[in-house]
Amino acid sequence: MSARALEAALHAHAEAVDAWLEAVLPEPRGHSAPLNAAMRYAALGGGKRVRAFLVKAVADLFDVADEPSLATGAALELLHAYSLIHDDLPAMDDAQTRRGKPACHLAYDQATAILAGDALQALAFEILAGPLLEVDDRTSRALTLGLARAAGPAGMCGGQMVDLLADGLDLDLAGIRELQAKKTGALIRFACEAGCLLGRAGDADREALLDYGDKLGLAFQISDDLLDVRGDAAAVGKDVGNDAGKATFVGLLGIAGAEAELKSLHSKASTLLDRFAERATLLRTLFGFVIDRSY
Amino acid sequence: MSARALEAALHAHAEAVDAWLEAVLPEPRGHSAPLNAAMRYAALGGGKRVRAFLVKAVADLFDVADEPSLATGAALELLHAYSLIHDDLPAMDDAQTRRGKPACHLAYDQATAILAGDALQALAFEILAGPLLEVDDRTSRALTLGLARAAGPAGMCGGQMVDLLADGLDLDLAGIRELQAKKTGALIRFACEAGCLLGRAGDADREALLDYGDKLGLAFQISDDLLDVRGDAAAVGKDVGNDAGKATFVGLLGIAGAEAELKSLHSKASTLLDRFAERATLLRTLFGFVIDRSY
Repeated sequence: MSARALEAALHAHAEAVDAWLEAVLPEPRGHSAPLNAAMRYAALGGGKRVRAFLVKAVADLFDVADEPSLATGAALELLHAYSLIHDDLPAMDDAQTRRGKPACHLAYDQATAILAGDALQALAFEILAGPLLEVDDRTSRALTLGLARAAGPAGMCGGQMVDLLADGLDLDLAGIRELQAKKTGALIRFACEAGCLLGRAGDADREALLDYGDKLGLAFQISDDLLDVRGDAAAVGKDVGNDAGKATFVGLLGIAGAEAELKSLHSKASTLLDRFAERATLLRTLFGFVIDRSY
Repeated sequence: MSARALEAALHAHAEAVDAWLEAVLPEPRGHSAPLNAAMRYAALGGGKRVRAFLVKAVADLFDVADEPSLATGAALELLHAYSLIHDDLPAMDDAQTRRGKPACHLAYDQATAILAGDALQALAFEILAGPLLEVDDRTSRALTLGLARAAGPAGMCGGQMVDLLADGLDLDLAGIRELQAKKTGALIRFACEAGCLLGRAGDADREALLDYGDKLGLAFQISDDLLDVRGDAAAVGKDVGNDAGKATFVGLLGIAGAEAELKSLHSKASTLLDRFAERATLLRTLFGFVIDRSY
């Protein structure tokens, strides 16, 4: 599979996710219209939807129907969108732009942005527990538990806390890895877990795919750090150069060291996928895409 | 049942909720210790735990075991605690005190408070989907869906949005009722719904109890408005007088009108409980307690 074919597949799936979310997100009507408008602003029309794509790519290994993969991926993207709104707040990273447009708290105001994030988190769980996700109760419960753990204090929120404190912590490589595994890794790992749950994967398949997810998440962060050093804001669609002085993989490993680590991760991830042979082509190509992306 | 006996029962149940949460909330260890400390600060040692008590009082009508009622009520209290943290933020109500101590964003900082709220919401759903809640998958899923809907854009978050905009909306009584039904009513209604789900209540019982919950929530808000006019901050444990100039029930009905509305709600709620005869003593007394509380 070529990188171009993968990009086309990513793009097509992102459009399907957006169309699904467009129908599910509440309309901006009534007295609370600004809340719903801010939710739509932050959750629609942006992002490559890599997490949702990953749910689908893993679920496809087990011939899961399209609809549950799409709904689960969409819920995960709402959770991700909420985290971006809150991360961008002045009290947090104080970011001005996100996905090529003003951050939610600038397009609306801080109070509305905080509430929009809160409501998007609730909506993500509503989707996983609701009738739109056509799965049995056991699977719904497992997906809810997995997302809650990935999003909570031992996952994404815990990672964001460490990131905020990182300047004063003097983190070594193990510390940075732990930060990454929580802050960005937890949701990517969950995407793989969700695909396994939907597909009722056996233990060995599941273990390999979660390990793949961990490596993909780590590669994603390292390539993000490289983009921050090398990228330009217009192409990236968010503020760059923010990481200067922060402990990052590039800061600790250097550019060449970070690139070597990416290669090593790619090789290990490829080996993990051997058990799925050519059925894992999408996951293989996705890993290369994450490493090579220049935007 | 006397008001004093109810207070004792409330107090005992609040202690059980706190002990349960104490064991479940993450320890303040490791690099993200401040997050976990802020979660504990905001979620423990305060509050009458009326919502958790209500879950139990409704579930008791159907002889539900103590443990599922306690766990469900505790999850609901975490959701409530998160909403208080975020409501108190400078960009929202900018409150200084909560439950008799400095608001979370003052005891810690804004970023930590935002994250603590986010993580408490995730933890609430983790409890409802996790193994600590000893219920079948169908009940777990229904509880998760109910809480997510109560917390999201059509519930609590939507209500908070309207509250923030209320000064400019010139709300009439119907508008204030809608605001209340979402902002504070949704979680109280969910407490009743949760008790019904745990107890597999029949449709008629469920309808009566949800209606009771709506009336209790409305009475709770009206009595809160009265407290804001009459109370003093030390006894109430949070800022008072904040509602001056805002559209409230007391502002629209006057003190005497608000008191008459409370009486009418009490009478209607009492009639709704007739079907449960003396088994509903706790719920009857609770309604009176909410109306008569002076703190």
